[in-house]
Amino acid sequence: MNLPNFNRRDFLNTSVSAGLAAGLAQGGFFSAPTHASENKKLGVALVGLGSLSTNQIAPAFQKSANCKLTAIVTGTPDKGNMWSEKYGIGRDHIYNYNSFEKLASDETVDLVYIVLPNSMHAEYTIRAAEAGKHVLCEKPMANSVADCRDMIHACKSANRKLAIGYRCQYEPHHLKCVELARNKELGAIKMIDAGFAFKIGDPKQWRLNKKLAGGGALMDVGIYALQACRYLTGEEPTIITAQETKTDAAKFAQVDESITWLMQFPSGVLAYCSTSYNFNGLNRLNAYTENGFVRMDPAFSYVGNSLETSKGKVALDVPDQFATEMDAFAKCILEDKPSKVSGEEGLKDMLAIEAIYQSIETRASVKVVA
Amino acid sequence: MNLPNFNRRDFLNTSVSAGLAAGLAQGGFFSAPTHASENKKLGVALVGLGSLSTNQIAPAFQKSANCKLTAIVTGTPDKGNMWSEKYGIGRDHIYNYNSFEKLASDETVDLVYIVLPNSMHAEYTIRAAEAGKHVLCEKPMANSVADCRDMIHACKSANRKLAIGYRCQYEPHHLKCVELARNKELGAIKMIDAGFAFKIGDPKQWRLNKKLAGGGALMDVGIYALQACRYLTGEEPTIITAQETKTDAAKFAQVDESITWLMQFPSGVLAYCSTSYNFNGLNRLNAYTENGFVRMDPAFSYVGNSLETSKGKVALDVPDQFATEMDAFAKCILEDKPSKVSGEEGLKDMLAIEAIYQSIETRASVKVVA
Repeated sequence: MNLPNFNRRDFLNTSVSAGLAAGLAQGGFFSAPTHASENKKLGVALVGLGSLSTNQIAPAFQKSANCKLTAIVTGTPDKGNMWSEKYGIGRDHIYNYNSFEKLASDETVDLVYIVLPNSMHAEYTIRAAEAGKHVLCEKPMANSVADCRDMIHACKSANRKLAIGYRCQYEPHHLKCVELARNKELGAIKMIDAGFAFKIGDPKQWRLNKKLAGGGALMDVGIYALQACRYLTGEEPTIITAQETKTDAAKFAQVDESITWLMQFPSGVLAYCSTSYNFNGLNRLNAYTENGFVRMDPAFSYVGNSLETSKGKVALDVPDQFATEMDAFAKCILEDKPSKVSGEEGLKDMLAIEAIYQSIETRASVKVVA
Repeated sequence: MNLPNFNRRDFLNTSVSAGLAAGLAQGGFFSAPTHASENKKLGVALVGLGSLSTNQIAPAFQKSANCKLTAIVTGTPDKGNMWSEKYGIGRDHIYNYNSFEKLASDETVDLVYIVLPNSMHAEYTIRAAEAGKHVLCEKPMANSVADCRDMIHACKSANRKLAIGYRCQYEPHHLKCVELARNKELGAIKMIDAGFAFKIGDPKQWRLNKKLAGGGALMDVGIYALQACRYLTGEEPTIITAQETKTDAAKFAQVDESITWLMQFPSGVLAYCSTSYNFNGLNRLNAYTENGFVRMDPAFSYVGNSLETSKGKVALDVPDQFATEMDAFAKCILEDKPSKVSGEEGLKDMLAIEAIYQSIETRASVKVVA
């Protein structure tokens, strides 16, 4: 439901969903929010039906406690029909990019999950917020710091919540690493290395098109390594230095193929990181601490991540990462709490990403300024 | 033996050892050199009897096929007496730093193995060459590119061979990695990460004294990571970028505590590396190739290194690394062949090390110029 902020104007201007109506019937806004979050399923409009939506997110709804797929937005009518049949979505809940604003009056939709090419994240986040919907937007948040700020502003203005699809921030092994970093059971972190790469296929896909993707490997998968350094330290990088290489200039004419970068954090932690679209087998997060280490390899996969510390293997159950991420956001909406993967979090990654590109461009270290 | 270069002046000016005399008796210089190397043991003067000499190198002589410990150089008479008894070294083959030049007339000594603090490498390499001895010098070769050049020049002028103690260049797992890199069985290398760190103890040791050590973790153990990138690619880095941190400013007042750095190679390989004196558990070499990977962890230990490739574990017998290194140099001397760990090899590492320090200083990328 679109949780009002106890403000008349907002209350009147936002669509009141069936969920909210039910919530009111059960005792109104002031009923204990945890009760609400235990029982409610928010309606989600999925925007963009590419492979991530098809293979990961749609199945995740079956495992979600607090989200249900109630609408889709697609530019391909055939896909719309197929999804409608497969997931029982009513024909009047299928939208395209021209009819997107009609979501405003779709009472089955509480939040919009944006799974579009990167360059469309800003526009559709803003349009969704203006349509009165909360927004969960896939990473990278946008193609520029400026776009990130616009998105945050739009969601704030519309009094809608914004979260970025940082699934690893809910993955139990990553949470365990963060816990160890905070409680210093193995001592303070001294150094981190993190890298994520894969060999990209089809040379004609949008990920290799600068206009659609904004950037290459760094924006797509390097961001996992970058963010892991940020949430492990709990700090923002101060100085960033980077290098780039292209060994396939034709395929990677528009976007970065391989990048390595260094980050310095206020507490003295150094991180050395890498990303590539041109090889497999790099999917790792290591932190070296005063008295030990934590090691994830693989670290950033949808399934099968593995954690070992200097004290031994840590095997944890990992529920569906997309269901967990959606449910966490739904709870933030239902309980009117801030999301830990907020727009501000996405903005901080983008500040670092812009610094990395700037360092490559200038061949100098770049001071990261918030 | 000090193998002459078939040049009268050299022949007359160099000391002719018992080994050479025996070689002459067996058929002179023109007998098949492999026969000579199979049978001969060259006499070694060990210079500096610190922990590496005590714990690694002295025992390695027991396993050496081509080297025997015939003399020692130490500033501590008690150590001299102890070593003399333990290893059966005659009292007239114990030298100190004032009597060092007397090595020139010690016919039991063919080569000098320098295991002194870094800042003394250049001086004693040059003095040993001038005394007519071949020189095996521990890494790092010296504290500066200028010193490296002087050492190379001195050994060339004296027609003596110079090798640097790069034991990993003879370690079977590393050789296997190099073989895979060259035969491209797993495709071309795309990226390398390498790191070597340990938590240094006694704050008063010479390694933390800038005048004696020249630098800190980078010079001492980071050099392994640096060199591994060079021999895996078979190339020299073109652009280097680095960052440094000090979390214990008192202990590391004079030398570097932790450094991360990036290197770009002509074929497009990127390397990201790290070193530290302030934590354990980082001792690794990974190469990511077009179709797989090689992974050593630990990578740079005296014993117990482990290699896995994308095709599986590779378990190889590892003979004593110091005996192997000494024997390889002895064979170069006996067969008058160039050493693959020559002074030029040490110089190339030092060029990169100076670039790393310069990048830290200038906060900019540094072009490595030979």
